[in-house]
Amino acid sequence: MVADALFPVEPWQVREPSLSIGRLAQSESVFALANGHIGLRANLDEGEPHVIAGTYLNSFYEQRPLPYPEGGYGYPEQGQTVVNVTDGKLIRLLVDDEPFHVAHGRLIAHERTLDLRDGVLRRSVDWESPAGRRVRIRSSRLVSFTQRAVAAVAYEVEAVGQPMRITVQSGLVANEEQPHESSDPRVAAALDRPLEAVGQDTEQHGAVLLHRTRVSRLLMGAGMDHVVEAPGDYDEETDVRADWARTTVVTVLQPGESLRITKFLGYAWSSSRSPEAVRDQVAGALTGARYAGWDGLASEQRAYLDDFWDTADVEVDGDPVLQQAVRFSLFHVLQAGARAERRAIGAKGLTGPGYDGHAFWDTEGFVLPLLTYIAPHAAADTLRWRHSILGQARHRARTLGLAGAAFPWRTIHGEECSAYWPAGTAALHLNAVIARAVDRYRQVTGDDSLDEECGLEILIETARLWVSYGHHDDAGVWHVDGVTGPDEYSAVADDNLFTNLMAARNLRAAVAGCARRPEVAARLGVRPDETKAWQVAADAAHVPYDERLGVHQQSTGFTRYAPWPFTGEHPGEPLMLHAPYFQLYRRQVIKQADLALAMHWCPEEFTAEQKARNVDYYERITVRDSSLSACTQAVLCAEVGHLELAHDYASEAALVDLRDLHGNTGHGLHLASLAGAWSAIVEGFGGLRERDGVLALDPRLPEGVTGLRFRLRHHGLRLLVEAGHRTVRVTVRDGDGDGARLPLRLYDESLSVAAGQPVERDVVPLKPLLPAPQQPPGYAPERAVPDPRPATR
Amino acid sequence: MVADALFPVEPWQVREPSLSIGRLAQSESVFALANGHIGLRANLDEGEPHVIAGTYLNSFYEQRPLPYPEGGYGYPEQGQTVVNVTDGKLIRLLVDDEPFHVAHGRLIAHERTLDLRDGVLRRSVDWESPAGRRVRIRSSRLVSFTQRAVAAVAYEVEAVGQPMRITVQSGLVANEEQPHESSDPRVAAALDRPLEAVGQDTEQHGAVLLHRTRVSRLLMGAGMDHVVEAPGDYDEETDVRADWARTTVVTVLQPGESLRITKFLGYAWSSSRSPEAVRDQVAGALTGARYAGWDGLASEQRAYLDDFWDTADVEVDGDPVLQQAVRFSLFHVLQAGARAERRAIGAKGLTGPGYDGHAFWDTEGFVLPLLTYIAPHAAADTLRWRHSILGQARHRARTLGLAGAAFPWRTIHGEECSAYWPAGTAALHLNAVIARAVDRYRQVTGDDSLDEECGLEILIETARLWVSYGHHDDAGVWHVDGVTGPDEYSAVADDNLFTNLMAARNLRAAVAGCARRPEVAARLGVRPDETKAWQVAADAAHVPYDERLGVHQQSTGFTRYAPWPFTGEHPGEPLMLHAPYFQLYRRQVIKQADLALAMHWCPEEFTAEQKARNVDYYERITVRDSSLSACTQAVLCAEVGHLELAHDYASEAALVDLRDLHGNTGHGLHLASLAGAWSAIVEGFGGLRERDGVLALDPRLPEGVTGLRFRLRHHGLRLLVEAGHRTVRVTVRDGDGDGARLPLRLYDESLSVAAGQPVERDVVPLKPLLPAPQQPPGYAPERAVPDPRPATR
Repeated sequence: MVADALFPVEPWQVREPSLSIGRLAQSESVFALANGHIGLRANLDEGEPHVIAGTYLNSFYEQRPLPYPEGGYGYPEQGQTVVNVTDGKLIRLLVDDEPFHVAHGRLIAHERTLDLRDGVLRRSVDWESPAGRRVRIRSSRLVSFTQRAVAAVAYEVEAVGQPMRITVQSGLVANEEQPHESSDPRVAAALDRPLEAVGQDTEQHGAVLLHRTRVSRLLMGAGMDHVVEAPGDYDEETDVRADWARTTVVTVLQPGESLRITKFLGYAWSSSRSPEAVRDQVAGALTGARYAGWDGLASEQRAYLDDFWDTADVEVDGDPVLQQAVRFSLFHVLQAGARAERRAIGAKGLTGPGYDGHAFWDTEGFVLPLLTYIAPHAAADTLRWRHSILGQARHRARTLGLAGAAFPWRTIHGEECSAYWPAGTAALHLNAVIARAVDRYRQVTGDDSLDEECGLEILIETARLWVSYGHHDDAGVWHVDGVTGPDEYSAVADDNLFTNLMAARNLRAAVAGCARRPEVAARLGVRPDETKAWQVAADAAHVPYDERLGVHQQSTGFTRYAPWPFTGEHPGEPLMLHAPYFQLYRRQVIKQADLALAMHWCPEEFTAEQKARNVDYYERITVRDSSLSACTQAVLCAEVGHLELAHDYASEAALVDLRDLHGNTGHGLHLASLAGAWSAIVEGFGGLRERDGVLALDPRLPEGVTGLRFRLRHHGLRLLVEAGHRTVRVTVRDGDGDGARLPLRLYDESLSVAAGQPVERDVVPLKPLLPAPQQPPGYAPERAVPDPRPATR
Repeated sequence: MVADALFPVEPWQVREPSLSIGRLAQSESVFALANGHIGLRANLDEGEPHVIAGTYLNSFYEQRPLPYPEGGYGYPEQGQTVVNVTDGKLIRLLVDDEPFHVAHGRLIAHERTLDLRDGVLRRSVDWESPAGRRVRIRSSRLVSFTQRAVAAVAYEVEAVGQPMRITVQSGLVANEEQPHESSDPRVAAALDRPLEAVGQDTEQHGAVLLHRTRVSRLLMGAGMDHVVEAPGDYDEETDVRADWARTTVVTVLQPGESLRITKFLGYAWSSSRSPEAVRDQVAGALTGARYAGWDGLASEQRAYLDDFWDTADVEVDGDPVLQQAVRFSLFHVLQAGARAERRAIGAKGLTGPGYDGHAFWDTEGFVLPLLTYIAPHAAADTLRWRHSILGQARHRARTLGLAGAAFPWRTIHGEECSAYWPAGTAALHLNAVIARAVDRYRQVTGDDSLDEECGLEILIETARLWVSYGHHDDAGVWHVDGVTGPDEYSAVADDNLFTNLMAARNLRAAVAGCARRPEVAARLGVRPDETKAWQVAADAAHVPYDERLGVHQQSTGFTRYAPWPFTGEHPGEPLMLHAPYFQLYRRQVIKQADLALAMHWCPEEFTAEQKARNVDYYERITVRDSSLSACTQAVLCAEVGHLELAHDYASEAALVDLRDLHGNTGHGLHLASLAGAWSAIVEGFGGLRERDGVLALDPRLPEGVTGLRFRLRHHGLRLLVEAGHRTVRVTVRDGDGDGARLPLRLYDESLSVAAGQPVERDVVPLKPLLPAPQQPPGYAPERAVPDPRPATR
């Protein structure tokens, strides 16, 4: 399952030593740059060859029809798809009269490096044209964390060996041709050339293009400006048309001379403002960028990331593969969320068009737990985004005949876009996962202002949803029937245990929130009988358990279903590509951690023995056909003492994109799995949990990890945890001498750690209750080892 | 629920006394003529106005794409849709230079009558043109039962009051414009002008047009020939183009004179033969028709129907509404199946384009039980059709990862065309229903030759399907999980009781069939361990039962689900148009009889008390949003003694189209409900059942029915059952004196009835165990009474 390594194992960077054309799609995603607002796929400067050209603006989408051969009540009729907006990355080069292209002439060297500490993607090329002219190209690209609307490229070309005419064409191009993702011509029509030109201008050294989407009527502007540094004379001119702009610089270089062009990009979009306002916003962004200059932008970027790593870095001694992968993961999670600012964090971030650019439960379920510890402002903004789509969620609940709010399974703008209800609408747990994120934000940060601003309203509206959908049987037991839990190979099931426990937590959090903030509850019209009903339902939630086998049931009846007929070999693709839902849904085969996730997120609902037995049972039938599985399995395997298995799963989660384990990294990165890699390490090996607002740690390392250090924030305090095989040390790094203390539960001991006074304890070993379980035949995880082979071409 | 009566209550005909333009779609279906091979909707002779112009040839279809916004493994990619073929019904009339049109000029009288005894649709019109010319038109139309490829129209126009020029244009028109049923432009494109011209010819007094469908590549020919009878001189000419042919007759009539044109239509189609062969086949049909002449065709038709009614008539004394309705039902069932001859019987017969012209389980489940008693050759041919698509069903089973054969939920040509798997693929019970039809054919007719020809292969392949899908739990109990029973408001359920019992019967029938025909079993490769496994599974099939409530469960857990929140009023439309499947599937609300059908078809699996209690429980939650429900509820209500309720349900089933109870008769008749009307009366009031090949009767009449007489065939003997409130009399009408005897179970007595020696017994009354149940609020059936109001316009 672990594919060839394209990238050498290095602690602080991801480097492609030579260009692998066959894996261009993967590298376009892996080297993508983003700040949560703008996303640039790592298309080559010259634009071609590419697999998917991509420039994205968070939440900038087009609407498209969803055609059903057999429709049904409540099916969404309109989908939303992220749009590849005006491409500003383009810098084409002509060497004399030959266009530079990696597949023509002779590519002597080609290296790309993403530096995780300074947030710059660098490329160096040594190329000889078919006519025998040799050039060296060095380009650097960044999407600014500090200037949200800005990206920049520094492009330098050097003449080698002989004089030559160098022409650089820097472009803005709208409506680039896209690969067709749908066989439906209506869908293709909606997404083919989605941008209508609204206006265009030349600026001093560049241009601005304004476009609007045809159906969703969103307006966007893209602008470019340039600084040219040439050793001698050069000509510069700019042409503008409806769908493109081009600034051309031409000069003659002597051997050893270089032409350097710094390109600043500014983006803006709006659903309501005028073209003039958007144009000015773009121009303003360009002015700010030009004022900072490349060096200024780069040093701001470095400083921003220094701060980030200071709070977020995870050090994994002994496993350099995992070390690189977890830093890569943290970097991309930051890129997805840093400046999203009340917009969604999509399942692929802004790295590709996969899943239409939609946000799922991945956001609150997997990305926010991490962001809450390392970038709490970004977590808060994401929750504010959820709150901003409460209107659509209320409308959806009404459509479904339910009270409260039913958040969309997948969306950009807030409307439900899932066209297959058993794996969309029926995945009602999403609502409880959002509620959990709201509650955790308060517990982890200690900031309860968000509750009043928007959090409590989310808790209340989701609680209302649950009681309107669930029901008490004649004996009073509360059931949630016909829902789909995280495991999408078991849809439309009764009393999915994860859903029931999470719904109960949702209900209790709403009760507690109303008690904490009675004035907010009153403003939101919460009646006393409502909170009572929430409490009653939560307390009566059914927990399916198989007495005979001594394990919990993923859902009622699950452990009675037929086994899956495993062939002994991994089919190489998800089972759902080879078997109908009809067969999958009622067999004991699990796409992704479901009960395991319940044990991870609701740990207090299970005894240690139950956890051990459940892990043992469910490991044997879980195939990890989803990238959201390995991370959770790592955490639970670690908790029950299968540390080596946990290590394998942690690697799998972390390497999902660096090694393209699911074969679809080209469509965009798996943000949740990347965030899950952190979870596998910190919540798995570190045993990190939140228990009633108190941080709990149970560090235990697998053999291959000699030491683990991780940093995070808790209640505003920066924390460092250093775990070895013998001792664990916890340091509060803030508030030295001001009496700040962090309550902490370390193994079974309750502590209070003072700033500047690290606590050190011996590791408490855990003997697993059961031997490590087998996975289904062919599905065992593989340990990733550094791959000594050079990247393949 | 019982709408206005459009048609007066008359025992042997359906008559529309005046033209109701607002209900044209309904009358187009109600007056449709067919013989199982050709179907003509009752469009007016002059073609317009119409709602849906329709001429159908059994199994002549076009293929079209099925677009999914989220596809899945095993989803059918291609649909099949019945094609409106070349229309030969058209006879346009010009009075002087004014086209006759019912909405122009003055329609003095307009009456249409479908005579159920002679199988002719007659129309008489008295019309004055805007220019004041008055004509009387009499037309008669038939689709021949005796000449499968032939239809004919006798058209007569009489000048009233003054001389006038009369021009009659008799046409063939291909690619008539159709109402668009789909919003998908690809689908519309596939079905817009589906016929490509292949050739055309003028004949002596007519023409032949040959066309081919674009994608399915089916070839068809339509031809017309004419006999003209005019009082004086007339001109006749024929024009032919690619998509139309027109024979024009012009003459001048004096007052009181008539022009009479007899139009013969011949149709043929083929997937393999040459255009020349098809052209000749059409010409041959026309020659045969012309040779018989209108009078010959009409008298053959009458003789055919005399024979039919002699074996099939049902007389309902005391309820003229039900009397008319059941004859109408029998007539249309005959029209759908009489000459289908190894082609499918669609859910709408050949009366309209509803459900794309597909055949469902309706065929074997509802239509064949009736046909087996009254037209066994047609039942056998339908089963031969099923056998002919066994290849596609085997292929489908492989696609689904199953053994044996999985018949399509909906199809024309044999491939699965259901685009929503929870209500298609998951309705696996279809296969057992087909097996039941095979088994019943043998039991009822005594003809076991079909088993060898094809029946046993169906039993075996469906048995293989069941054991490959079901599974034994650790205790040996056999389960069928994740299927959809007849009730489509409870999809993807575990151990649907109907499915389990029917699957068990299917398995037992296969075991018994293999024992009866070991040589056939051997030829089909049946191994002894297979039949053993079938028997074991059948004997261990799980029967979900709720001990606490003392009722069976429709499926596991059903009686624990939440109730449906009925508002107290019938919403006027099916719930599924107002609520998502997500809500419907896990509530105690039932679209259509499911457990009731299990009790009807597997009566020996339930005690009388269980039936009574089950009826009582499930009646309260069944909404009859399917036309396949009332008939079964009638049978079960009668069986447990709720005779008045049974009477109401029988009326509802029988009037589904005459009163357009579901509001969609315009798309075609509800064949299964019409057949179900017979079932409601004969199996309900008559208590007819098959018990191990022995006919069983338990006649008990509701108050409003003073006498019931029904006829059927059993083991080749014609039988007459006469039931009153006091006595029952059973007569074997064949084999007088030759010693033929019919074993019979009458109430609890086993008898043997000799030909010519009727048996008479007193009615054995039944006191119901429980009072008659309530239906959900707003859902009680209404008793239909003769509507004295004239038909509305």
